[in-house]
Amino acid sequence: MIDAPASLPDRVQIVEVGPRDGLQNEPEQITTDVKLAFIRALVHAGLKRIEVTSFVHPRWVPQLSDAEELVQKLPPATSSVEYSALVPNLAGLERALACGIRHIAVFTAASDTFARKNINKTVAESLHEFQRVIARAKQCGLTVRGYVSTSFVCPYEGDVDRNRVRQIASELAAMGAGEISLADTIGAASPRDVQSTVGWVLEALPVDRIALHFHDTYGTALANVYAGLELGINTFDSSAGGLGGCPFAPGASGNIATEDLVYLLDRMNVRSDVKLGEVAKASGIIEQHLRRRLPSRQLARLRGCAALQP
Amino acid sequence: MIDAPASLPDRVQIVEVGPRDGLQNEPEQITTDVKLAFIRALVHAGLKRIEVTSFVHPRWVPQLSDAEELVQKLPPATSSVEYSALVPNLAGLERALACGIRHIAVFTAASDTFARKNINKTVAESLHEFQRVIARAKQCGLTVRGYVSTSFVCPYEGDVDRNRVRQIASELAAMGAGEISLADTIGAASPRDVQSTVGWVLEALPVDRIALHFHDTYGTALANVYAGLELGINTFDSSAGGLGGCPFAPGASGNIATEDLVYLLDRMNVRSDVKLGEVAKASGIIEQHLRRRLPSRQLARLRGCAALQP
Repeated sequence: MIDAPASLPDRVQIVEVGPRDGLQNEPEQITTDVKLAFIRALVHAGLKRIEVTSFVHPRWVPQLSDAEELVQKLPPATSSVEYSALVPNLAGLERALACGIRHIAVFTAASDTFARKNINKTVAESLHEFQRVIARAKQCGLTVRGYVSTSFVCPYEGDVDRNRVRQIASELAAMGAGEISLADTIGAASPRDVQSTVGWVLEALPVDRIALHFHDTYGTALANVYAGLELGINTFDSSAGGLGGCPFAPGASGNIATEDLVYLLDRMNVRSDVKLGEVAKASGIIEQHLRRRLPSRQLARLRGCAALQP
Repeated sequence: MIDAPASLPDRVQIVEVGPRDGLQNEPEQITTDVKLAFIRALVHAGLKRIEVTSFVHPRWVPQLSDAEELVQKLPPATSSVEYSALVPNLAGLERALACGIRHIAVFTAASDTFARKNINKTVAESLHEFQRVIARAKQCGLTVRGYVSTSFVCPYEGDVDRNRVRQIASELAAMGAGEISLADTIGAASPRDVQSTVGWVLEALPVDRIALHFHDTYGTALANVYAGLELGINTFDSSAGGLGGCPFAPGASGNIATEDLVYLLDRMNVRSDVKLGEVAKASGIIEQHLRRRLPSRQLARLRGCAALQP
């Protein structure tokens, strides 16, 4: 009567996006030194892949306008730690190359309205640009990740056609993006969306080339991770403390919190080699420079509510 | 390569426990009139099963010391709406009967340390007491639900043996409890715990007799609901706004929020007939009497953060 328990991956990689996706909307300017302390603490916590900044034009994301300085001062990337940066175009790629970045990410979306408002291009136009960006990056020996924003729901167009997601992911892969991260940009997806869309993409691309990037606006992010694990996905993006939320609405969290993801994985015996308590310390470094508390449930718990609700 | 999507139940029942489990730890005394307005709004939102209060001794839970008055003033229970109350012992049952309650719930735990600290009895002692309580309740034509607290993790004893959970659930069922609600009291369970323990219980009891009661302390509650749905479970407890959290730790939420549960179900086309926006209005009635914001993600979203995190 009971189905056999789904077998989940034994281990997963966590891609920490706090320094980039997490900070990019923060109104409080964080100094380069604080960011570096944050990143050192993340490495110490066992995070092996960290997206540290973005080479978009500083006008668009002032918080990350210190990209060059930050990258030059990063603790050495040992063979086991990999720093990456977001790159919007060829100009950004040249900046990234000039300061020694070896791993880049490009980003488009699965809905044109979102792409136009977010990167001022249609999806097709962005893919056209990426062809040159990725070719040049590969030529220089860089690894490339491709983000597909709004892979499940678009805030303007509503539900996104999974055929379109699969097609864009396939095009990025064909251009040379080694990994495609499917993003639930507004955090509205459910496990059923994950099953449907990600399952569909997996019929075109191998599971090791797909990562999932959830935001937790509606509280469904961990449920979506679980649905992803059931599909065999073994790479998940997250952000220390749940950085990346809308700073103006307490509780309206953005990226799934790394601590909360690690808790889920630890509890299910899925190895990540990331130390929850150490991630929380890293989050604390940033939190003391924000005018709010970060939304991670683990952080709230560690702040110390011992009361029980029977 | 891709497994066929698990088939989930077409519809579920939500048992709203906000007025009882949600309020019992609130330090701000809520008046009976406010509670009644809250309950009326919950009925208006489409909630058909509402646990309205507890007949524990008023000394233990002062917030619910108005149990008699509240029950006597409830809006009429139509054929489609059912009010229930928690009953700790025979004395409580007599109080419940005296004011016309037709549905009761008894509560024990799956770990003795927790039971002793929470109800001052061992599990065996509580089951012994319930035998008489349930017999008397059935004699009077009442329906009985049995809660098993700490069905997954005990804050004192750690992981709970699923054999013990199954045995206690079976004993309660054999005594005449029509429904057994397995509670993750401290909100520490993962979907794998649900699969393991609930799957195990379902080998002894039919799926329609099992409800799941999650707290969201670690953010895993919706993931656990999804794991429950995959097992065919179709009754879930929740609390409007996520009432029931520790009032002293913002973000350390207690019961899974009804709004967040309804969002997940709606998005997955699982019918509950509960209207999310109306539940949020009900939560608003209580929230204005608390000194904090309720933790529901949907409430945070509805408070209005339109900013997007690309």
